[in-house]
Amino acid sequence: MNKKAIGIFDSGIGGLTVAKEINKQLPNENIIYFGDTAHLPYGNKSEKSIIDFSVKNVEFLISKGVKIIVVACNTSTSVAIKYLQKKFKNIDIIGVINPGSKAAINSTQTNKIGVIGTFRTVKTSAYKKSIIKLSAKNKVYQQACPLFVPIIEENFNNKKIISEIIEEYLKPIIDKKIDTLVLGCTHYPLLKKQIKQIYKEITIVDSAKETAKEVKQIISSKNIKNNTNISGKVSIFLNDQSESFEIITKKLFPGNKSKLVNYNV
Amino acid sequence: MNKKAIGIFDSGIGGLTVAKEINKQLPNENIIYFGDTAHLPYGNKSEKSIIDFSVKNVEFLISKGVKIIVVACNTSTSVAIKYLQKKFKNIDIIGVINPGSKAAINSTQTNKIGVIGTFRTVKTSAYKKSIIKLSAKNKVYQQACPLFVPIIEENFNNKKIISEIIEEYLKPIIDKKIDTLVLGCTHYPLLKKQIKQIYKEITIVDSAKETAKEVKQIISSKNIKNNTNISGKVSIFLNDQSESFEIITKKLFPGNKSKLVNYNV
Repeated sequence: MNKKAIGIFDSGIGGLTVAKEINKQLPNENIIYFGDTAHLPYGNKSEKSIIDFSVKNVEFLISKGVKIIVVACNTSTSVAIKYLQKKFKNIDIIGVINPGSKAAINSTQTNKIGVIGTFRTVKTSAYKKSIIKLSAKNKVYQQACPLFVPIIEENFNNKKIISEIIEEYLKPIIDKKIDTLVLGCTHYPLLKKQIKQIYKEITIVDSAKETAKEVKQIISSKNIKNNTNISGKVSIFLNDQSESFEIITKKLFPGNKSKLVNYNV
Repeated sequence: MNKKAIGIFDSGIGGLTVAKEINKQLPNENIIYFGDTAHLPYGNKSEKSIIDFSVKNVEFLISKGVKIIVVACNTSTSVAIKYLQKKFKNIDIIGVINPGSKAAINSTQTNKIGVIGTFRTVKTSAYKKSIIKLSAKNKVYQQACPLFVPIIEENFNNKKIISEIIEEYLKPIIDKKIDTLVLGCTHYPLLKKQIKQIYKEITIVDSAKETAKEVKQIISSKNIKNNTNISGKVSIFLNDQSESFEIITKKLFPGNKSKLVNYNV
């Protein structure tokens, strides 16, 4: 069991930011990552489709013999996590929303928290519910930012226009006097620097670190950590391949190549 | 045969602009439209995946008993049309690129033509090859505009930012002194007005009208027109449904509802 990999899936490559953090906190663990790039993006798809895709992604990771599964996609977590946990009882499946919510609660001083995500994540109010469940005194303001994923996926790089789009989306929740902003989409850390440049006074939290901590805690308590001194192997599987995925994969995991699989298309 | 429908497919809802034009020019024809919204968008997917998806879309339309198939997607036309025509020999399959190229050649005075499309369409140079094959004296300048589809799909409506994005993409080819611009993606007609406002002197052509003409000509010459006085029925099938699809469907075909099918997911 201990040598088995940690399984991670996302709709695409955004979840690699979570894989990166797990790899940093648990350098000896093997990681198997699956990006459902044939169906990318999830953010504007229906709940039914997102559940269907997520079930197939979990089945793929289980077929690879992983010991725990991380849903490194906020849209999938908000729509499908409970369904997945019920359907696949024999394996721990953890999402990114609870860890992200905890991080936000730890950060806020004013108890006013902003959450940005895809259309679908915001529509489910998953963060809002999760934060309020953990600490009812907080006020949560949500905003969907549907152009952020394509800006990142397409490598759009006119910084002036990107800043204007960030302001267009964020102004309404900044005006509510939030002091903490949750990046409720695993792509968004790739825009963190630019958001920070505009809103210097806001604390930005992303779920990656907290999620990695939770994985560490679970595999420690279950005694299934990989007790070796050898660096873990990161294997990346995608069901569609394109130039931009290769560029981002190389940026986050230099030396690693993604493999194309025909699963779930 | 004559009462059978005209089959149309696209990656999503953009191809409805082509369906609309066919419905206008051939009001008595039944139309069956399939949008592969589960895989939307095609523009940044790999050639292999686009061919696989397109084959399944054709199979779906054939299973519905159509008499001719229109590939109302520039990305799919540029990557897959030859493959489809070879694989499905018993049915006419026409794309949007040849008709669009003819329209551009008829419009240009300076023989300098601009073409905008998705990353994948531009990468194949399908328009460039098609225009030069029809008339070698033309110069063709191409530009990928990967943010246009999400702007349309997501109903982004800050007009100032949209204008800046249009200028960011179009300036390099406008500087080449083109007098005609081909909208090489069936979504783009939904941005036509804004492009026209910025570049008043440019003639904008889209493939929808010319494609409808070609369909009319083929079904007339084959004597398979629907010779009735009753208005044709437009049936829209999608394999994933969302609010924005409903909004655009209603805009283009008021009174029509799309049906959800589990095909090709």
